[in-house]
Amino acid sequence: LPDMDSLSLKDDCARAKRFCDFMDTSPTTYHAVHYLSKDLENAGFRPLNERDSWEDEFHTHDKFYVTRNGSSIIAFVVGKDWTPGNGAGVVGTHIDALCAKVKPISKKTPVDGYTLLGAAPYSGAFSDTWWDRDLGIAGRIICRDGNNKVTSKLVHVPYPIARIPTLAPHFGAPANPPFNKETQMTPVIGLTSSKEISEPTEDEKLSPLVGKHSIDLLRTLSKHSGVAVKDMLQMDMELFDTQKAALGGLNQDFIFCPRIDDKVCTYTAVQGFIESVPDMDPRALNIVVCFDNEEVGSNTRQGAQGGLLESVVERVISHGMDASVANLAEEYKRKTYANSFFCSADVNHAVNPNFSNIYLEHHKPQLNYGMTLAVDPNAHMTTDAVSLGFIEEVARRGKNKTQYFQIRNDSRSGGTIGPYISSSTGMRSIDLGIAQLSMHSIRATIGSKDVALGTKFFKNFYELWFGVDEEFNKGGI
Amino acid sequence: LPDMDSLSLKDDCARAKRFCDFMDTSPTTYHAVHYLSKDLENAGFRPLNERDSWEDEFHTHDKFYVTRNGSSIIAFVVGKDWTPGNGAGVVGTHIDALCAKVKPISKKTPVDGYTLLGAAPYSGAFSDTWWDRDLGIAGRIICRDGNNKVTSKLVHVPYPIARIPTLAPHFGAPANPPFNKETQMTPVIGLTSSKEISEPTEDEKLSPLVGKHSIDLLRTLSKHSGVAVKDMLQMDMELFDTQKAALGGLNQDFIFCPRIDDKVCTYTAVQGFIESVPDMDPRALNIVVCFDNEEVGSNTRQGAQGGLLESVVERVISHGMDASVANLAEEYKRKTYANSFFCSADVNHAVNPNFSNIYLEHHKPQLNYGMTLAVDPNAHMTTDAVSLGFIEEVARRGKNKTQYFQIRNDSRSGGTIGPYISSSTGMRSIDLGIAQLSMHSIRATIGSKDVALGTKFFKNFYELWFGVDEEFNKGGI
Amino acid sequence: LPDMDSLSLKDDCARAKRFCDFMDTSPTTYHAVHYLSKDLENAGFRPLNERDSWEDEFHTHDKFYVTRNGSSIIAFVVGKDWTPGNGAGVVGTHIDALCAKVKPISKKTPVDGYTLLGAAPYSGAFSDTWWDRDLGIAGRIICRDGNNKVTSKLVHVPYPIARIPTLAPHFGAPANPPFNKETQMTPVIGLTSSKEISEPTEDEKLSPLVGKHSIDLLRTLSKHSGVAVKDMLQMDMELFDTQKAALGGLNQDFIFCPRIDDKVCTYTAVQGFIESVPDMDPRALNIVVCFDNEEVGSNTRQGAQGGLLESVVERVISHGMDASVANLAEEYKRKTYANSFFCSADVNHAVNPNFSNIYLEHHKPQLNYGMTLAVDPNAHMTTDAVSLGFIEEVARRGKNKTQYFQIRNDSRSGGTIGPYISSSTGMRSIDLGIAQLSMHSIRATIGSKDVALGTKFFKNFYELWFGVDEEFNKGGI
Ligand SMILES: [Zn+2]
Ligand SMILES: [Zn+2]
Ligand SMILES: [Zn+2]
Ligand SMILES: [Zn+2]
Ligand SMILES: [Zn+2]
Ligand SMILES: [Zn+2]
Repeated sequence: LPDMDSLSLKDDCARAKRFCDFMDTSPTTYHAVHYLSKDLENAGFRPLNERDSWEDEFHTHDKFYVTRNGSSIIAFVVGKDWTPGNGAGVVGTHIDALCAKVKPISKKTPVDGYTLLGAAPYSGAFSDTWWDRDLGIAGRIICRDGNNKVTSKLVHVPYPIARIPTLAPHFGAPANPPFNKETQMTPVIGLTSSKEISEPTEDEKLSPLVGKHSIDLLRTLSKHSGVAVKDMLQMDMELFDTQKAALGGLNQDFIFCPRIDDKVCTYTAVQGFIESVPDMDPRALNIVVCFDNEEVGSNTRQGAQGGLLESVVERVISHGMDASVANLAEEYKRKTYANSFFCSADVNHAVNPNFSNIYLEHHKPQLNYGMTLAVDPNAHMTTDAVSLGFIEEVARRGKNKTQYFQIRNDSRSGGTIGPYISSSTGMRSIDLGIAQLSMHSIRATIGSKDVALGTKFFKNFYELWFGVDEEFNKGGI
Repeated sequence: LPDMDSLSLKDDCARAKRFCDFMDTSPTTYHAVHYLSKDLENAGFRPLNERDSWEDEFHTHDKFYVTRNGSSIIAFVVGKDWTPGNGAGVVGTHIDALCAKVKPISKKTPVDGYTLLGAAPYSGAFSDTWWDRDLGIAGRIICRDGNNKVTSKLVHVPYPIARIPTLAPHFGAPANPPFNKETQMTPVIGLTSSKEISEPTEDEKLSPLVGKHSIDLLRTLSKHSGVAVKDMLQMDMELFDTQKAALGGLNQDFIFCPRIDDKVCTYTAVQGFIESVPDMDPRALNIVVCFDNEEVGSNTRQGAQGGLLESVVERVISHGMDASVANLAEEYKRKTYANSFFCSADVNHAVNPNFSNIYLEHHKPQLNYGMTLAVDPNAHMTTDAVSLGFIEEVARRGKNKTQYFQIRNDSRSGGTIGPYISSSTGMRSIDLGIAQLSMHSIRATIGSKDVALGTKFFKNFYELWFGVDEEFNKGGI
Repeated sequence: LPDMDSLSLKDDCARAKRFCDFMDTSPTTYHAVHYLSKDLENAGFRPLNERDSWEDEFHTHDKFYVTRNGSSIIAFVVGKDWTPGNGAGVVGTHIDALCAKVKPISKKTPVDGYTLLGAAPYSGAFSDTWWDRDLGIAGRIICRDGNNKVTSKLVHVPYPIARIPTLAPHFGAPANPPFNKETQMTPVIGLTSSKEISEPTEDEKLSPLVGKHSIDLLRTLSKHSGVAVKDMLQMDMELFDTQKAALGGLNQDFIFCPRIDDKVCTYTAVQGFIESVPDMDPRALNIVVCFDNEEVGSNTRQGAQGGLLESVVERVISHGMDASVANLAEEYKRKTYANSFFCSADVNHAVNPNFSNIYLEHHKPQLNYGMTLAVDPNAHMTTDAVSLGFIEEVARRGKNKTQYFQIRNDSRSGGTIGPYISSSTGMRSIDLGIAQLSMHSIRATIGSKDVALGTKFFKNFYELWFGVDEEFNKGGI
């Protein structure tokens, strides 16, 4: 690889921009999955449906991707010389974010000429940073398509429809916190006075959603999804901040955008994955997987405990061996895992300069520096010395700088999907991630180079892990 | 189906009665399993032993059931045209209930001429409603059968043997709560005085249980199990309320019975399952599974996290494919799951008229109305928009009415087995259940029609899910 | 073996001493694994590498062992007449203990002329019993071996290097607890004044560890590992109590030593395993497995949830069947498990005479008595009636005395690896262990005969379980 100085500045920027574009066009988990599947197809990946057999596909192609519930996705490349038992290089991320869920019955009585919407917080939503934000609505509609087809349509109303308004400080005491989440943080979505209150038509009454949600909401969703109200069976809508992602900082050192937690790892892992295809070790099986529901414990089928990864690896193995040694399926499975390496990628806490003494000295991650390796003495993370050495070797060869994060002895740490995967597959694994500022705020910050750095890191991982592994293998570890 | 109104009243009643019979004859998880396996055999299902090969069985039959530990059971029908990769329609329930477990050494020093029995509360047992109930004993014995066979025998002493007696209010203050669960709620099972204290015979001393439990207990168990004491190696006994289930209410609107939580879903799911066989889609694999240990977190081999369901599905698959494609075993596994649908059925909270304002408006379940769909914004339930749409479609076609349950933004919710299964298989799934009054009391109430309504709901699910799924499949979700 | 009464006293002592030797020479998980793999090789076991195919090995030998991460180990013997579907006899222990982990960057700013070391508590470490103990350092180094090999080296500095000093009570209040684990319990390892601050050489700067740890520490590790500093890539070091194990008590009834929890079960299980090879049932597959990370929840690949056991079993199976029935791989897997038996061996609570009324009567384990069988009514343990009966039969035949442990109804119980294994394999299993006094102290106590008793117990288990199982099988349980 030629030295990276001469032409890189421009490239970093383009990557950062593209990441921003990704974030703008995919406000919900469903849209993010949709967006990535487009990228994969453009890179020549074929969609596989978990419900179909992948037989034929495997004979003619070697690049595939699978989605589950439309809110999690996995892509993989089978190296030309890959045989069952050879390891897989895997990167796992999560693709869900904090938001507000529209309630199953969201209709409310108007107040002072305003229309209101019933919503419930998903995980740590409705914090102070939610006041006076332009909230959009998007999600998906389960709908009838023709008369014997039920499908799901994504919908993204392209403008903000709701907000939670503050009271002007001019009014003195009534304007001070705390506020009740059920009664004082109800989103406002319109005025009753614009147009006489509208009644649902006979057609529209065919939908079971009429009566549970205001008819204007359903018509708006219909207008922007092309689904007639009468065909709507169910829906899953989220309220989110509609402000676009932006490059920021003096030297555009920053990217400001909502829902970074964990889409930045998701995005860079997928891009790194795609760009590593040409230079991957033909004996490797490379996989990238993005899970849902990490923010509420992962305990769903489209979550990390859902077994999406295992299912792909084991279907690939089963296609990689010929019938004559079918009896060694298990052995190949275990060999494969034993020779695999898993990176659990979840954003981490960049040091916050205004609260610096809350961190463990020497473990204060920087932006635009390089991947952060998360370590924990109590196995809340899966990092251990081997996986640490391994990754640092990969990093060294790819000339990627890395840094550490660990909590102080007198505070607790969060969780990640790492332990779930490494424990269910047995793969050597590590917890790493891009450092991010102001975690779980409605809008956070990463370094603008972190997109390129992340992408490069994952690219190199997919290209180099096999080689590095040989040396570890020779070393018997 | 003929329209259900004309001849149904009588039938509802018969179903309610049969459910009552089921409850009376199966006081423990083991007996419930035993009872259901009888029903299955009467419906032409063959028992499969997890330790045997199922080779021959699969050639000659297509309806099977498997039990694990005798305390969980799974039954399945392989459709004629089912091939590996086709989905399974699964209903999961739990079959354990709150009870008192006999301690490994249950002998206690007699007090004042009473024989006491050492018992421990299983989950939320020993609440106030446990005082002065007739407690029976049942369970199973691990015993020597002949001299080179060890087996297990169910035993159900057909009369109550224990109770936890109150102190007469005549004694004033000492008769007021609170009471200590270890020292003041010890069950009483007999009198020392009936017959001089009896010594174990030489034969009986051959049993390792002699000395750990009172000899009378062992002889009683021996008498009602036909197992000689000397052959007893081990046992697992529960204390339960022996009062029979009863139809109640002026117009027999109610069923009063113990351990409803979750046997009513178990029973109606199995009955629905059995009655759906004739009209199932021949391309479907229908499964009903009843897990143990839900009330203590499911973390056992016979619990939802024990992999019973997965093992059956995967053995069915492995028999469904011929050797030549053995290498695609994994692939078929994952395809199958992707095309499956899982209903997690656990009873839910019916509104209580003396405490009505504790519930979220528009989410107050009624008795004798229809299945309750449980929703939660923080994934404590597995219900999502797809599974909600899916089930409401199934209900619509089968003309089954449904209702919602969700908690207020300012209170917490319980858990179910749903998340465990959907996460370990990846199947689309939903949390639903029959509404019940006074949950976790030693004796609760459901509507008397809820047995028929539940049975019908599950019956329709097994018949219709494949068809409905085709439409979802065509819709790509 | 001849009857054990006549010459046993002397032998017991030798076994106790050897256990002590084992404990002294293996202060860390890595050293313990290393020690045991030596024992296994001396007993004719061949090392298998998870990454290699075991094809050839299986044709020529039948005794193997596998390590994972160098901190967990599994050994197995494939009986001559063993075929896929036949069960395995398994004993599982954990090999990790409470300790202090050296931080990824352990360099601290010297204070008042002292050199400090950054360390974090592993699980319940840094309790009160950690003050003023002589702490040693050991662990392993990931290092470059030649220029295209990366390996790992064990290091054990043979003298204590650190301690955590108390403040003299003369200082009044500041000498009273509580103390902050981050700022007041930092280990002291040296004085800055001895030798002017030393600078790393150019060579040494090649190591990525220089700068993260004090150079003196690295040189010390280099001296005692024979690894040049420049070759060090990474390391995993622990601080531990260096006081040697000792026989104690009036009649030398006791063994006092650190980290007994769970090495005593590990040691005796492995010894029993090795000594049972000659008399095992040739149709059996015998396995002993020692997991890491039990003390922090097992949620790692080298932990019980890591699937190490499953992978060995399933690879043995896949080698045991020929290609023609490869489609039945799943089925052999499930059959094997259904016919297997698992002993989860973790030390248990011996009754503490000064706190006697905290225990459940009749469930107060004694030292030097026999194996303790752990039971729990809320499935925090996996013991059930079948596994209880099974083991007592094994014990009876081997003339091993056993005893019970269960908690009172008014207190909570801990966890073990049992539930993880039995729920992920479905094997029948039991929780048992050697009783130990003062659990989780930095230094605990067992009976001196318990080493012999334990070894004998496990020996008999491996020899007898298959026979006993036949009888259970005939009994259909
Ligand atoms: Zn995250
Ligand atoms: Zn987060
Ligand atoms: Zn329940
Ligand atoms: Zn319950
Ligand atoms: Zn332990
Ligand atoms: Zn412990």
